[in-house]
This record gives sequence, structure tokens and C-alpha cells, in this order.
Amino acid sequence: MKISSKDNPLIKYLTKIYSSKKERDESSKFIVEGYNLVNEAYKTGSIDKIFSIKEEPLYKDAIIVTYDIIKKITDTVTPEGIIALVNKKNTSKCGNKILYLDSLQDPGNIGTLLRSAVAFNFDTIVLDECTDLYNPKTIRASQGAIFYLNFIDKKILDLKQENYYIINTNMNGVSLDNFKLKSSNYVLILGNEGHGVRREYQECSDVNLTIPMENIESLNVSIAGSILMYELNKQEK
Amino acid sequence: MKISSKDNPLIKYLTKIYSSKKERDESSKFIVEGYNLVNEAYKTGSIDKIFSIKEEPLYKDAIIVTYDIIKKITDTVTPEGIIALVNKKNTSKCGNKILYLDSLQDPGNIGTLLRSAVAFNFDTIVLDECTDLYNPKTIRASQGAIFYLNFIDKKILDLKQENYYIINTNMNGVSLDNFKLKSSNYVLILGNEGHGVRREYQECSDVNLTIPMENIESLNVSIAGSILMYELNKQEK
Repeated sequence: MKISSKDNPLIKYLTKIYSSKKERDESSKFIVEGYNLVNEAYKTGSIDKIFSIKEEPLYKDAIIVTYDIIKKITDTVTPEGIIALVNKKNTSKCGNKILYLDSLQDPGNIGTLLRSAVAFNFDTIVLDECTDLYNPKTIRASQGAIFYLNFIDKKILDLKQENYYIINTNMNGVSLDNFKLKSSNYVLILGNEGHGVRREYQECSDVNLTIPMENIESLNVSIAGSILMYELNKQEK
Repeated sequence: MKISSKDNPLIKYLTKIYSSKKERDESSKFIVEGYNLVNEAYKTGSIDKIFSIKEEPLYKDAIIVTYDIIKKITDTVTPEGIIALVNKKNTSKCGNKILYLDSLQDPGNIGTLLRSAVAFNFDTIVLDECTDLYNPKTIRASQGAIFYLNFIDKKILDLKQENYYIINTNMNGVSLDNFKLKSSNYVLILGNEGHGVRREYQECSDVNLTIPMENIESLNVSIAGSILMYELNKQEK
């Protein structure tokens, strides 16, 4: 199948999915761009349809489109010439190492943290009042990590009642250099780029952890979160 | 002093400094935006001139400009209403903990790494074929860290001859979990976002370090570099 008109209804639909959270929510679909991400989606069986500027031996059902159509759908300056419409994963599986993101707003930070979560054996993610997971920028920064994680819709108090050990991060807590992990079921909370973790979540935590640092008050949240995940994962080895 | 015309020669000059590396190189000046960064520049005595949309008790010599002028000079969507023209630091001081960036291209990555360098006691930076340090995006991501670091113009072989211990990062090296630092004068090399550290630098290293990770091949370079700096700094305590 080939599509060459930008006014084709399917192309208009893809453009909406790409740019609108509402459309993504209603359809339960999202879009990934480029060979790497299409391949990750393909391996995990999440693909609805692939759109490519040329025939791809691996993706025989790909719909052939023009480069201008790919450019119309995405906001990437020089796209690779392949995108896919992907089904959102429908899972409520809850693992034993949870990254809980409280009100993160920067898609790049969220995507980068997902990539680090996969690297350091965190299996489950909660996005509590964050920017949409399926935002194209988040997808791009996650580099496919999104396909390896469970996303659940639980609140911190639910997890506490289920006996997860709750680890908060702030500036005046226990130094990460001295911290010894005592549980293998835990939640790491990271807070908003400007305001940190909200007070009520801080208050229900079992420990407040601080990364010791010199001269400056705070690190970028994706940096801080990744250092914490690396260290917590190391302690479990 | 007040300026209300966008066509004022000084405003045109600032616009050039903001957007052109060549102008920054020739003038040895750059621009910072927002209260935090202006304050950091002020504390370190680096300011040439401040431009603000209102009178500031702290900065009595500030030139008053319109909000439209600030918007014309910068590319920030909603600027804070204060910028400063700042003198580049003229230093060749070389400390004992050096971060060596080989061909990094993303200004956000460079700025974030500078912020982490300050946090973890790295005192000296080499930018070897990287994006311009004084690019507004780098300055923004560094959050003022730029004022606390020495930037030197040495090559890795010079540093090796000066007996620095050279730490390279790649995917098949010694696990960071098991590494013990044996020197207090060292260089950490991080490589380009796509290609890693160039081969000739890898070959002259004293050790290749790898951050152990699951399921994925690599981390964002600013994440990997920050984890390494945190760990190396911890070992020296």
C-alpha cells in the first residue's frame, strides 16, 4: 500500500496522534520514530502499522509514504524516514523495584530516567501528574526503554500499605554514601524539577536520601535519579 | 541609562554575541540570562554590563531596557527580564581532577556535566572539539557551574606526560562496581554521544571503566559521566 497525499485521512489521524495527548488517550496508541525505536516496538509485538519511505524487508506490511508525509506527521527536523503507530501496553503488573515520578514536567528528563531505570533493574514506573509518557520527546529520550517497563497507576500510600519501603530524596537526609538498603521491595520517589517531592509524599517515606555534593544545591533530576538507581541496584548484588 | 530601541547599536551587538560563536570568540564575551545566572556571574566578578527591564537595587549600573529588547536578544520564550554581558574567564590553571570531553555535541549534555563536575569536586575541564561552551543552551544547562571551573586547552597526551592517571569509559572495561582508584590526579574521558571516545584516546588510557547495566547498551553520556564522577569522588573521601 502506498500513500502520497498529505490530505489522506490516515495521515491526518497520525498527525493528531503525534501532537495531541487527548488523541493518544482516546485511541490508546502513540507514535515512535526512527529505525531503532520501530525495531524495539516490533520486537515487543506492540506495532499497529509501520510507515516507511521505502520497502523494508523486515517489515513487509509497511505502508509506503513520501518523506514529506513523515515530515508533516513529526516535528523532527531530519527524520529517518520510518515511523510506527504503536499500541499502548495494557498492564498493571507491579514489580519489586518502583520508580515513582512526582510531577516531573520535562519530557527529556522522564525519558532519560526510563532509560536509566531499565539499565539498573527498576521494573515498574509510576507517573504521578507528570508530562504524558507518550509525548514524542519522552519516547525519543527513552530510547526504547518504554517497551521494557511496567507502568502502573498506584499512589504512594497504596504502595506503602503493600509494604514497599519508601525512599524519598531531599537535601537534608541520610547521605547516600552511608546508606544501607534493607529491603528488596522498594519505591524511589523523585520530585518536580523546581519544587522537589511534594510534602505529603516526603512525610510518608521510610527514609530521606541525599546525594552529597559540593558548592551547588542540587543536580538535574535525571542525574540524581540515575545515581540513586545505580547505587541501590549495586547494593542488591 | 535607558535603551528603548531595538535598533540601538549596543542591542545589535548583544544579539550577535548571543547567537554567534565567532562574535563570542573575537570579543571574549558571552551572555547569561535570568536572575540566578546573573547573580552567579556577579559574585565571581565576571560582569561587563547588566541589562534589566526594571531597576535592581543590587545592580545599580544596570542599563534599563524593554522586555521586547530582552526577547529580541535571546531565544528564550518567556525570559526573566534580566541578562548580562559577561567576560570569559582567562585561566590556564590546571587542577588535579579533570573532566575531558571528547567531541560532545549536545549543549544540554555539556552543561549538565559541568553542573555535576562542580557537585563532585572536579575542578578542571577540557572541551576537545565540543560544541561551544558559551552557547546559550550550554550556559543555561550548567546553572552557573561554568563560573566555578577551570577550562584548559590541553590534549590527553600532554596530561598523560604530566602523570595524570587516565580513565577512559567504554562498554568492555573494568566494572565500576569493582574499581579502586589509586591516584588523586586523574582525568576522566567521556566521548561523543554517537561514537564514544575516539580510539587514540582509548589506547593511551590507564584503565577502561564500564558502568554495569542490564538490557540496554548505553546510558546518556551526561548520566554515565555523572555516575562516574560521583563514584570517583566518593572513593577519595
